Parts: sequence; structure tokens; C-alpha cells
Amino acid sequence: MEYRIEHDTMGEVKVPADKFWGAQTERSRNNFKIGPEASMPKEIIHAFAYLKKAAAMTNTDLGVLTANKRDLIAKACDEILTGNLDDQFPLVIWQTGSGTQSNMNANEVIANKAHVMNGGDLSDDKKVLHPNDDVNKSQSSNDTFPTAMHIATYKQVVEITLPGLTLLRDTLANKTEEFAEITKTGRTHFMDATPLTLGQEFSGYAQQLTNSIRTINNALEAVKELALGGTAVGTGLNTPKGYDVMVAKYIAELTGLPFITAPNKFEALAAHDAMVEMSGALKRAAVSLMKIANDIRMLSSGPRCGIGEIIIPDNEPGSSIMPGKVNPTQPEALTMVCAQVMGNDVAVSIGGSTGHFELNVFKPVIAANVLQSARLIGDACVSFNDNCAKGILPNLPEIQKHLENSLMLVTALNPHIGYENAAKIAKKAHKENKTLREAAVESGLLTTEQFTEWVKPEEMVGSLK
Amino acid sequence: MEYRIEHDTMGEVKVPADKFWGAQTERSRNNFKIGPEASMPKEIIHAFAYLKKAAAMTNTDLGVLTANKRDLIAKACDEILTGNLDDQFPLVIWQTGSGTQSNMNANEVIANKAHVMNGGDLSDDKKVLHPNDDVNKSQSSNDTFPTAMHIATYKQVVEITLPGLTLLRDTLANKTEEFAEITKTGRTHFMDATPLTLGQEFSGYAQQLTNSIRTINNALEAVKELALGGTAVGTGLNTPKGYDVMVAKYIAELTGLPFITAPNKFEALAAHDAMVEMSGALKRAAVSLMKIANDIRMLSSGPRCGIGEIIIPDNEPGSSIMPGKVNPTQPEALTMVCAQVMGNDVAVSIGGSTGHFELNVFKPVIAANVLQSARLIGDACVSFNDNCAKGILPNLPEIQKHLENSLMLVTALNPHIGYENAAKIAKKAHKENKTLREAAVESGLLTTEQFTEWVKPEEMVGSLK
Amino acid sequence: MEYRIEHDTMGEVKVPADKFWGAQTERSRNNFKIGPEASMPKEIIHAFAYLKKAAAMTNTDLGVLTANKRDLIAKACDEILTGNLDDQFPLVIWQTGSGTQSNMNANEVIANKAHVMNGGDLSDDKKVLHPNDDVNKSQSSNDTFPTAMHIATYKQVVEITLPGLTLLRDTLANKTEEFAEITKTGRTHFMDATPLTLGQEFSGYAQQLTNSIRTINNALEAVKELALGGTAVGTGLNTPKGYDVMVAKYIAELTGLPFITAPNKFEALAAHDAMVEMSGALKRAAVSLMKIANDIRMLSSGPRCGIGEIIIPDNEPGSSIMPGKVNPTQPEALTMVCAQVMGNDVAVSIGGSTGHFELNVFKPVIAANVLQSARLIGDACVSFNDNCAKGILPNLPEIQKHLENSLMLVTALNPHIGYENAAKIAKKAHKENKTLREAAVESGLLTTEQFTEWVKPEEMVGSLK
Amino acid sequence: MEYRIEHDTMGEVKVPADKFWGAQTERSRNNFKIGPEASMPKEIIHAFAYLKKAAAMTNTDLGVLTANKRDLIAKACDEILTGNLDDQFPLVIWQTGSGTQSNMNANEVIANKAHVMNGGDLSDDKKVLHPNDDVNKSQSSNDTFPTAMHIATYKQVVEITLPGLTLLRDTLANKTEEFAEITKTGRTHFMDATPLTLGQEFSGYAQQLTNSIRTINNALEAVKELALGGTAVGTGLNTPKGYDVMVAKYIAELTGLPFITAPNKFEALAAHDAMVEMSGALKRAAVSLMKIANDIRMLSSGPRCGIGEIIIPDNEPGSSIMPGKVNPTQPEALTMVCAQVMGNDVAVSIGGSTGHFELNVFKPVIAANVLQSARLIGDACVSFNDNCAKGILPNLPEIQKHLENSLMLVTALNPHIGYENAAKIAKKAHKENKTLREAAVESGLLTTEQFTEWVKPEEMVGSLK
Repeated sequence: MEYRIEHDTMGEVKVPADKFWGAQTERSRNNFKIGPEASMPKEIIHAFAYLKKAAAMTNTDLGVLTANKRDLIAKACDEILTGNLDDQFPLVIWQTGSGTQSNMNANEVIANKAHVMNGGDLSDDKKVLHPNDDVNKSQSSNDTFPTAMHIATYKQVVEITLPGLTLLRDTLANKTEEFAEITKTGRTHFMDATPLTLGQEFSGYAQQLTNSIRTINNALEAVKELALGGTAVGTGLNTPKGYDVMVAKYIAELTGLPFITAPNKFEALAAHDAMVEMSGALKRAAVSLMKIANDIRMLSSGPRCGIGEIIIPDNEPGSSIMPGKVNPTQPEALTMVCAQVMGNDVAVSIGGSTGHFELNVFKPVIAANVLQSARLIGDACVSFNDNCAKGILPNLPEIQKHLENSLMLVTALNPHIGYENAAKIAKKAHKENKTLREAAVESGLLTTEQFTEWVKPEEMVGSLK
Repeated sequence: MEYRIEHDTMGEVKVPADKFWGAQTERSRNNFKIGPEASMPKEIIHAFAYLKKAAAMTNTDLGVLTANKRDLIAKACDEILTGNLDDQFPLVIWQTGSGTQSNMNANEVIANKAHVMNGGDLSDDKKVLHPNDDVNKSQSSNDTFPTAMHIATYKQVVEITLPGLTLLRDTLANKTEEFAEITKTGRTHFMDATPLTLGQEFSGYAQQLTNSIRTINNALEAVKELALGGTAVGTGLNTPKGYDVMVAKYIAELTGLPFITAPNKFEALAAHDAMVEMSGALKRAAVSLMKIANDIRMLSSGPRCGIGEIIIPDNEPGSSIMPGKVNPTQPEALTMVCAQVMGNDVAVSIGGSTGHFELNVFKPVIAANVLQSARLIGDACVSFNDNCAKGILPNLPEIQKHLENSLMLVTALNPHIGYENAAKIAKKAHKENKTLREAAVESGLLTTEQFTEWVKPEEMVGSLK
Repeated sequence: MEYRIEHDTMGEVKVPADKFWGAQTERSRNNFKIGPEASMPKEIIHAFAYLKKAAAMTNTDLGVLTANKRDLIAKACDEILTGNLDDQFPLVIWQTGSGTQSNMNANEVIANKAHVMNGGDLSDDKKVLHPNDDVNKSQSSNDTFPTAMHIATYKQVVEITLPGLTLLRDTLANKTEEFAEITKTGRTHFMDATPLTLGQEFSGYAQQLTNSIRTINNALEAVKELALGGTAVGTGLNTPKGYDVMVAKYIAELTGLPFITAPNKFEALAAHDAMVEMSGALKRAAVSLMKIANDIRMLSSGPRCGIGEIIIPDNEPGSSIMPGKVNPTQPEALTMVCAQVMGNDVAVSIGGSTGHFELNVFKPVIAANVLQSARLIGDACVSFNDNCAKGILPNLPEIQKHLENSLMLVTALNPHIGYENAAKIAKKAHKENKTLREAAVESGLLTTEQFTEWVKPEEMVGSLK
Repeated sequence: MEYRIEHDTMGEVKVPADKFWGAQTERSRNNFKIGPEASMPKEIIHAFAYLKKAAAMTNTDLGVLTANKRDLIAKACDEILTGNLDDQFPLVIWQTGSGTQSNMNANEVIANKAHVMNGGDLSDDKKVLHPNDDVNKSQSSNDTFPTAMHIATYKQVVEITLPGLTLLRDTLANKTEEFAEITKTGRTHFMDATPLTLGQEFSGYAQQLTNSIRTINNALEAVKELALGGTAVGTGLNTPKGYDVMVAKYIAELTGLPFITAPNKFEALAAHDAMVEMSGALKRAAVSLMKIANDIRMLSSGPRCGIGEIIIPDNEPGSSIMPGKVNPTQPEALTMVCAQVMGNDVAVSIGGSTGHFELNVFKPVIAANVLQSARLIGDACVSFNDNCAKGILPNLPEIQKHLENSLMLVTALNPHIGYENAAKIAKKAHKENKTLREAAVESGLLTTEQFTEWVKPEEMVGSLK
């Protein structure tokens, strides 16, 4: 491979000749060979492009950067946002905990790309922009990286997570209406219980997701606060007056999202509680989805030896050895995602809890886990929705069979003959393998006419939605 | 021991003669000898007293219970709330996952206590109240236990957690003012960084707790919704019309807390996402507190070989072997609490994610963990506040020594001589073990007068609060 | 309350007049009001009694303590081991992270109790033993507390955890034999699959526990190493030569357990990886038990609308509203325990990972969680065994019905007609709601005689145990 | 893009014309668009190549596959092992929980690649091998995927994890020798304590890793057991006699690793406790590494305002704003890895605990997390070793300064003047800001000669290694 010589404050470094990155990126590549290359999330890279551009615009407005340099920086940032420069960001999550090296990766790529766009050559000794003095002006890794974390997370959540959850919630809410008249046996403790409608069952799922969406929206309130302007330790050293508010406004404009400057920059650098909160909100959604997906797979179990009250779409051959087998693969993918999100939350919490003094240095691991959780939940909801939930049908014969057989219809007798007498009837039916009606009449506690009048499953499902 | 014979729908059971509990409680005692006796949280027991009383009041209002029975139930519930009957609740967390046995424990104790208060005898065959038909009327364990969980949690959080967090937050906010003029070296990556004030450092802590409090308040919005009225599977079977709204109103009145009936009872029985959310909010607070407590112990480290920039109160001899040793014991207790809360959150999430169909049967473990977390955070904040935070003093000589020595004051030169030249000065000072001023002047990049003018730590702390 | 005045190196303290504890215990009581009183596990207190006695015996043997003082200490320790002094240990888990205060609690109670046993009075100014100079001789909290952790954990595991797991494993292994001839449908993905015997199903459970037991035994190898002899920082300062080996030998003798001195005392004070490993082993057992308990509850589901292939004992009325309902309460208690153990493991790991320099100061929280996990698993296994597993019976009619209906018997045709043809038959049977035989013959791919010869469920269960 | 038509038992599917995968892989691609493409770990793909080859060899030996087909399969598998076909495996982790689709991906690629290698064309209607009937012969996803999990994990652990840990352990052990004579102040509770040598401090780290390595080796004992031969539900249906033992032997031969057939195939399909155990062992290592890395970063803190007792290599400019700053970046990367591994362990445990009946369907998420943890720990240890640990130097002037100042040298006086008198001296020195010697002599409790004789730091470090 061909190389060129780049330098930083520690000396010279050989960098692949055709790459836009510089000395510090290359040092990091060499010093952190941990896991697959380029694992730093692309969402973070693109967020850096927004913030570098916004910083340049603010710096120019506030008189500390020439308009020409601003335009050069902005042009290079726009190029990053196209995705065309993704391969210029080779660094891994497992680098310095402040993300300094990815900040410098952005600074170097922007400076060098701008130089080339401006007609220069990568091998030129003197470049049109300095990565630190120009591109990083009024910034520190300590405030840019957390800003990039928040930008990336907010975008991921509103573009992928919430739409996915909402799509699925709406489908489940539609099923609530669609299945409103289908009375079925309830199950508590995995055991037969009093009846409800299939629509009611699905209404609980829809409510769970409605609540999860609310919690995620609450967490966004913290994520919308940006650290930028705090620089090295939160004091805003080397920033012009008014910088923090203005740069947040520019970021809001560029992204179309309601970012504001953080009210306390010391907190915003030293802690990532906002990310911990978002992770917790995503984990809460995972908990909800785990319940829903488990129910769906169990309700659809069979086809002949399970519960089988609903039918889910057959999407793939289910087994490489058992011919004709079809499996609840979408619930499986979704529950695996939920397990991952629950694990990620622990990684995020540990990272979040162990910052020291003016800086939390678990930034990349926190960012990577929250972004993965946000993406997986959104994607998995869409997949589950499109390939499973939308197509769920009731298996009416099985539902009817179970409903008729359930001994727990006896509960309707409590107000008429008392709990203990009702229990005697249920136990008799169970022991003698009889229908509830048979056992009831044989018990002498009521007549068959009374049974007919009192035990009406469709009236036991109540008026609660 | 003397016994009397009680019975339930499964037959006869020998119960200690002087205990108010009945057959089902005794069965549970015998069948679940897991861990220490009586581990079911007392907060849950007392919450049951509120809800049983409210249910009786509602039942009477709606015409399904006599006023006399209502008054008997209410009187027994009041007695439970005094704490005098705490020893009548011997059951453990590790029972049926619906908490049915603790619900029956409440029903039995109330029925029997009322009978005795009414002049009856425990050995009477016929009692004035039936535990199921009267005390449990219009209820099921499936809606009472989650209601008790929410009542107990809401109370614990507003009576213990939030006051503790607020107390500590206010102390830290006061320190922010008190220490506003003390400039000190910052530390990032545990390494010397640019200066800030000690007040700014504490302002970050205060902000963390302000945010944690907000998140907990958000979570309370979900906890205030009560399942009561859903009965067995969420349909409200065997409840009179209007029961769910009215019973929530009575509970709100009795507790003075803003409870309302849950909008969807199916969700309220089958999932405990509200508890998961509260656990996540408490975990977020634990993450904040872990950071704060770690900083405090590190800032106070020494007395001669550590960082030593603050002085914390000496409360106890620190060592059984090292005479005169004093340790940061309050931060230690607090960080242990944080570790516990972070672990509890995982237990709660696992329990929350694995409900099936119409019922989550991890109710007691969820309740016990959330209540413990809420209690521990509140208590530990008070302890940390009273015995440590309030008494924190700056160690001015150490602060001054560190500030003067810090090479990172060089950052103030960036706008004047550029990042790379500034780096040369810092490196020279470090390598030659000189002061920054010496190295700066020797470098020829600036004069001693310029150094004096440009490097003013107290001006480097900015105007950001 | 009456008080007496005690003193320590910080001054005077008022102590309840009739308590054996002294100044430092009382300081801790006052300074750490976090959670319920006296939460420090009793197992730790008793472990202290073993080690204080062993230390005294070693000190005397090595010539640094008089035989008289040794005997006084030993006598007081024996009294602690009877449990009669449990109420003399009022401290909480949430104290100093080294457990210094509980070590001093032990020192003070032993010194004072010995004084009284020796005819002295608690109010005497001069006592027969000094808590630090005599009872704590050759010790530091830093080596005694981790020693107590290991003693208590080893005992708990061999006395409660392993017997419980082994009991249940043996029951499951017995069921393996008992159910060896009962062929039933298999289920993968919760869907019907090829057959196996009920005994084979249970053999998997037994194997899981066998493996869990092996892992716990592996972890005991680390727990058997004792820190005692390291004193303050691991160097063994102020111990006589040979002390560490001899004191471990005495502890082994007194407890009847194979304790040895830790090969590296620095590790033994500064890290609690042995406890983390044990917690991980207990968590692995919890993972196994969660699977087993879930299977049992699902296999026994019904009685009419579930899977219902096994029958578990009816131990209690299952519902306060649904008469005659019986629930899988033992699996529920067991799975709640498993969730707790999985959460505890996270608390332990966080505590274990955050020691600093020569000491880990999360000792009490680590100890409390490991001891709880060890106890809960052992107890819950016994409860589940005695009240559920032992009494499991096959529900032969249901098993037979499912087996005959399962379409996955078609897999036996693969070697004869190929996977794709077999799939056609299964799909046809499913779609047309026919038996597999009908569909097979109608497909023209085989004759009814061939079907009879090739599809024999009892021959499909193989020779693998 | 050009397509060809492939079919499976569900019908026709359009597949990119130049890809070796077939209908089922394509269905999965379309149905599971969750997260980045091709996330299924390559280690799993390669493990499939070993097992498919071994299965073919066994099938031929046992007379159920022609030698010609065996050779075709083997040749295609060898091609997979070169890595040249990595881009033929586009599936994600988040698919069916049995990994069926990745098993079919392997079957399809092998069948098609073999066909092409044999001179055929991808568009041929009839291929030389059938993916199910030939490549998957005597197999099911249910036994192949867990076998691939174990092969991949065992390889990853012995090729990456253990070498990394051992390398670092050896470096730390070398430092133990190198620093054996450097006496320094100890620190407990982050506070000054009695002295030890720097070598002793490092010996604790080395011991931690020695123990972690032992635990991982213990866990390998479970991972070496292979499920292959169990087929669909563990009974070994459709396998020739002797298949399971022989195929494990072939896999052992091909990989050079000590694989054996699992003693109980039901456990091996339905549970992944072996993976849970390995994850727990990796987590234990993470806990150890977190402690070590934290100590290193704190010991090297400064350069002027921290503890600064060791010097670590300067590898990169540490700050984009603070010139000349150098940070402990390797400890930061390592601790981030540790946080991830601790989170992964929770995901693995949740997945491991929630299998149902004859199959655990969280296989891919379990595999991906364990493989990532194993890789990250190994890589991070190498990175930390090469770029940090190897180059650690003592900062002798700082060490000496701290040692001389430490008040805890007073502990050496305990045996001479008692704990309480020693405490008086320490407190006096602290309060009056004097040296210990000054305070001691002024106290009148000993002479300056006695002080010299009794307080010798280098003699306080004991004979314990």
C-alpha cells in the first residue's frame, strides 16, 4: 500500500495515501485493534457532520471563523452526510472513552476532504483547514462526542424506533376492534380462567405499546439537550459568547429536530444520564414486546397439540428435518431483540455510572448500545408487524371448543350460590370429567334453566374495553 | 402450640389457635418455606388495608354489601394500618406469582379480626364475615395485588425516595452557591484538565438529581393507575357498574394520593410495565448517585497521598487495625445501594417481561424489588446528606496547589498561538518538570507578560453556570 | 431507655445499657439508617464467630495472646454460634464497604460478653478484653470480612444450595426412569414436533441440574480460599509468622469444611472474584431452573384449554374469585426466585468490578446478594421438589391424543420418500384437516401398509437416552 | 439485478442470479430486515462448514451417503473455510430462534457451490446435491446450530480469549517481579493505608487473571460437548447408529479441538447452559479486568494533580482542545469492553432461561453475544498489553513522596503501644499537619530512636508475596 506522512503533536505517522483521515485516526487504528474494524456507529459519524457544520456556521456568525472556511467545512460535512465518505471512518467503539479519536477522525476527514474539494492535494504540506484550529474550533471532544450521541440517538428514535412501535401499536389496536366480538377463554397462571374477548386481549397489547411510546417520548426530552459549548470541562473555555445557544439552534435547523443547549454543561459532559434514561425507556419497550411476542407464539401454538387460538402467517419452511413445519419465527426474532436490549441496558447503566469528575469516559459504548437498541426495536417491530401481526386471524373452532370446555365459567355463579358452592361444582366437573352444566345440575345447587340464565360467556366479558 | 381447625375449598387445615389468619394462609406457610419468614413487604400489607376498605365502601355504595359489613371491614383495615397486626402476615415473597395467598391472608385476617372485634371468637364455626364473599367481594387477587403494588410503590416513592433525593439535591445546589468562587483544576480521563470552580462541579451533581427526580415523577404517572375493578382477567366480572372508578377515588381519598382507575385493565393485570418503568427511573437515579458518590470519595481521598481537594466529615474510626484512619463510609454505603438498585432493576425487568396471557405471575418479586430500591435510595440519600454532603468543605491549600501546577492551563493559549504550539509548551514543561510559565517563556512563543495576561485560571471558568 | 457511656478513638458514645455492643457499633447504627435494621446477614455474624475463635487459637499457639484470653474469646464466640446473641448485631448491609463496623460489632460483643461471662459488668471501665488489641489481634476488617464472606457462603452453599439442587435433580432423574416408556409429542418453537418419551424430556432437566451442580462445585474451589492473614492491605502486617496457614486450618477444623489460606492476599482483599464466580454459578443454576419450571407449568396447563400432558399436585385454592381453580404455584415461586438470582448477579458483578487499589469496598452488598441467592435456590428447590416435582404424574389420555394427532410423525418418511414429498403430505393433512395416514395414502406416495410400517412413534424416540 | 427462480416446499422464490444461496435464505433476507445485513457471526458460518463436512464423512462411513456426494460436500465446505464465500451468508442474528435459516443458508450454499464446482450451472433445474436430503442428512437445525455455537465458541475462546488473557497475565506477573523492591503506600477506601510493594500490588492483578483463566477453562468442559446427533428433538431420529459419537470425533479431528458428543441431547437442544456458563466465565474475567484497568488509570493519574505513582505509555494526543494532554486510553477501551461483556451476559442469561420444551429458540442471540464477549476480551487484552501494560514504569519520586508522608505507617506501632495510643499519634499528626515522627515524639509515647526502629516501611510489606 502507498502511504503519505501526516503529523500531529506527537510526531509523524504513515497514513494510507488515498485516505482522507490523518495522523490521529491512524494512531487509533493501530492502537485499538479490538473487534471488527469500523464498529463506531455510522449514525455517530453523520451526527458529527451536522455538528461540525453547525459549529462552523456559529463560529463565523460570532466572528471567529472566516466565511470561506465555514463554507469549506460545510461542503465537506454535506459530503459526509451523503454517506459517500463512510469508508473514511475506520475506527472502533473500543477506543478512548471520550471518543476523542472519532472526533479527530471527523476533523481530519473534513479538513482533508475540504482541501481536496478546494483543489488541493492530500500530499500538500499546508492545508486550507487545520483539523483542530478550524474544524474543531470552539469545540472539544468532550462536548462534541456527547452532542453527536444525542443527535444520533434522537434521530434514530424518531426515525426508526417510534415509527416501528407506532406501526405495531396501530395494528394491535386495529385487531382490538376486529376481534371485539370473539369471546374466548381467559388464561391466568397459564391455566383456564374466566372469558374475555380476543379483542380485549389485544387491547392490552396495544396499551402496553402506547405506554412505551409515552416513556420514550419522555426520555427524548433529556436527549434533546446538547452539550456543545461546554468544551473541555463544561466551562465553555475558548468559545465566543452566545455560542452554545446558537450552535444548538443551527443543529436544530439542520436536522429539523428540537435540539436545545443543555442547561448545565458540567452534567452534560460528566454524566450520560439522558442516554441511561433512553436506554431504560427502550428496555421498558422490550419488556412490553417480550410479553406480546410470547403471547402470540403461545396462542398460535400447535397446529394440533397446542393452544392454537390464533393463526399467524406462514412465511418460511420451519424445519430442515421436519417436513411441513411452520414456526412463529417473527415472535422469535422479536424476543431475541428484546433480550439484547435488556442486556444492552445493563452495559449502558454500568458505563453511565462510572464517569469520573468532569468527564464520563464510557461514551462510545453507551452510544453504540443505545443506538443498537433503538434500531433493533424499530426494525423488529416493522418486521413483526408486516410479517406477522397484520396477518393474525382467529382460529374460531379452537376458540369455541376451549370456551365451551372451560370450567372457570363457574365464576359466574359466585354471586348466586357463593364461592364455596361454586368451587364444589367445578371440582366435581373436573374430577368426573363432566361438563360444568352436568356437574352443576347433579350438585343440586341449581337447575339447568338457572345455569343457562346465569352462565353466559358473552356476558362475562363485561363492559370494560 | 395450640391449633384450631379452619377450612377452605380443599378441606381442613390446622391453624395456630391465636392467629387471625386462616386456612389458605396456613397452607401457604407450609408450602413455601423459602427464605426468611414474612418477607412479603409490609408496605404491601398496608396497601391491602387501604384497598380492602375502599372496596368495602364502594360495594356498600353500589348496593352489594351491607353497611354493617362495610364498617366491620373498615375497622379491621384501620387496625392493620396501625401496624399492630403486622405479625399476622407471615407469608413470603416466594409464593404464588399472583400474590393470591397474600390477598387471602388479608381477607382472612380482616374477616377474623372483625369477628373478634365484633365480640366473636376465633373458634366460632360461623363468622360475621366471609373472607371471599365479603372481604374479597368485587375483587380478585389478580386485580388487588397489582393495586396494592401501585399503592405501596407510590407511597414509598413520594414519602421516602423523592424527599431523600430532593434533600440531597438541595444540599448540592447550596454547595454550588457556596463554592462558586473556588477555582480548581478540572479532571478529565482522571487526568489534569482545564479549570472550573468547585461550585460548577457540584452544579453538575445537582443537575443530575434534578433530572432523576423528573424521571421518577414521570414514572409515577403510570404507577398512579390502579387495576382494581378488573377482577379475574380484566373484564370486571362480578363487579357492580361504576365500581372501578369509584374504588380508585376512595383509595385516593384514603391515601391522599392521586390514584385513578387504569384505562385498560387487561394491561394492568397482564403486564407490570409501570413497575418496570419506575424501576428504570430508580435505576437512573442510582446511576447518577453512583457518579456523585464516587466523585466525592475520590475528591476527598488522602489525607496525604490522594487528591484531597475536599474534606468530608469524620464520623467513625475507619479501621480496626490502622489507628486514626477515617474513611468515606457514606459514599460507600450509597454506592452499594446503587449497585443493589441496578441489580434489582434486572430482576424486575425479567419478571416484567415474562407474563403470560391475562396475568403476569411475577408480581411479588417485582413489588419487593421496586419497594426495596425506592426505600434504599431515599434512606441512603438522607444518610449521605446528613452525615456527609452537608458537611463537605473545600481543602483550599490543596486546591490551590493543584490549580497552580496544572499544565492544562495551556489551553488558554490556543486562540493566541494555536493548538500545536501550545502543545509544545505543555510537553516541554512536563518533560523538563518546569512550570508552564517557565516553559512558555523559554519556548520563545510568548513573553512572561503575555503569559500573565492570557493565562488566568479564574477567567477560564467561563460564564456558564 | 438507659444508656452507658462507651468510648473509642473518636470519643464517647451513649450505648443502650443492656447491649453488648460498644461505641463503634452504636456510631454505625446512628450513621447508617438505611433500610430495615439488622439487615447484615446472620450467616456473616456466625462466620465471624468461627474466625474470631480460630484467630484467638492461632494467636495463642503463636505466642501473642494468653491462653486465658483465648478461652474467653472462644467462649463468647460459641455463644454467638448458638444464635442467642443474634440481637446484638443491629447493623445494616449499607454501612462502610469494608464491613469494618460489623467486624467491630463482633469485636465489641465478644469483648463485652466475655467480660460479663467472666463475672464483670458492662459498666466496668476496664474490661478483661480489648476489642481491637485482643479480639481483633492479627486481624483487620479488610481480611476478616472477606473471610467471613467465604465461610458463610461455603456453608450456605453446601448446607442449603447443593442439597436442594441435588434433591430435585434426583427426583427428576427418577422421573426419567418412571416415564421412560411414555411416548409423547415433542415440541420445538412451541409447535408440534417429532416424538420423544416423557422420560427423555425429564432427562434433559436432570442433566441441566447435574451440570449446574458441577459448576457450583467448581466455584467452591475459589470460595474455599481465605483472606485471613492479609490484615490491612494484604501484606500480613502485625501477624506472627505462620499465622495465615494455621488460622485457615483452625477454621477448617471448626467448620468441618476444607478451607485453606488464599495463595495471594492482595487479590483476596482487593477483589471478590470468587464471590462473583459463585454468583455466576448460582445464576447459571437459576437459568436452568427457570427453563425447567416453565416447562412444568406449561406441560401441566389446562385443565381443559391447555397442554395438559402432566398433572401436578393441587396444594392450595388457586384463586380468590374463580372457584375450583388450581395453579402451578410452585413453578411460580421458583421462577420468581430465578429472576431474583439473575438480578442479584448483576449487583454482585457491579460491586465486584469496582474495587480500588488494595480494597474492594462493596463487600457487604456482595455478601448479602450471594448469600440470598444461595439460600433462595436451595430452599426453592426443596419446596418445588416436595410440593410439586415428586408428585408429577403423566396425563396419559392427553399425551396419547396429542401423539396421534401430531403431523410431525411425517418426519419418519424422509428416508423413504424425501423431505419434499413428506412436506406435501403434512401440508395436505393440515390444510384438509385430515389424519396423516389419510393424507399420505391420498397423496399416492405410499400405501397404508407402508405408512403403518414406517410411522411408528415408539420407534421414533431412538436409542439416545 | 438479475434473478433466477429457486423453490422450496412453500413455492418459488426469486434469488439474485449470481448468488449461491437458495430459496430459504432469500425468504429469510426478505422477512427479517432487522439491523445491519449479514450480522450472523462469521465464526458460526465457518463452524457450519466443519460440521457439514464431518456429517458428510460420517454419513458415508455409516453407509447413508455416497462417497462422491461426501467429497462434493467436503470441497464446498473447505471453500467456505477459506473465507471466500463469506458474502454468501447475508442473514442476520434476528431470524428464527433456532437458526434454521442459517443452517439452510449453509445447506443451500454448499449444494449450489458443489454443483458449480462439479461443472454445473446455478440455473440448472436438477442439482448434484439436495440441500436437505444430502447436505443436511442426519441433521436438523436443532442440533446443527447448537453444534456450530459450541465449535465457534470453543475456537474463539482458545484462539483469542485465552491467549489474550494469558499474555496480559504474564506481563502483570513479570511486573510483579520487576517491581518487587519498590515499597509504596497502600490505599484502602481510596485512603492512605499501610505500605506494600508495587510488585505485590501487581501480583494481585496477575492472580485475578490466573483465576479467570481457570474459570474459563472450566466452562470449556461444557462447551466441548456437541449436540449433533440429536436431530429434531434430541432422539436422534433419522440418524444411523453410532452417528453422534463418530461425527463429534470427525469434528474434533477437523478442528484439532477436543470435542465429544453431548451425554444428553435433550439438554443440548433445549438449553444452552454451557453457553450461559461460558458467558458467566467471561463476565467474571471482565469484572477482574475492570478492577485492574481502573487501578492502572488511577495510579497513573496526573501528571501533576493526581496520584501519579506509575507512568504509562503516551500513545496519542489525548485531547482535541487541551494541548499536550495524554490520557489512559487503553484502560478506557478495556473498561468499555468490560461493561459490554457484563451487559452481554444478561442478554445471554435471559435467552438461556427462556427455552421451551425440546428447543431453546434464542440460539442466535446467545451465540452472537458470547462470541462478541470472547473476541472483545481477547482483543482488548492484547491491545492493553501491547500498548499499555508492557510499558508501565514506576514513578519513583512520587512513590517515595507518598510513602514518606503516609500517616498509616503508624500501624507499625500497634504491637508496641496499642491501637488507641497509635491513633492519638496519627490524629495529632493529621491535625497539626506534622510528620508522624514529630507527632510521635511530641506525644511522649515513644522516642525518636524507637520510632526509627519500629517504623520501617520496607519491613511492613511482610513476607507474603
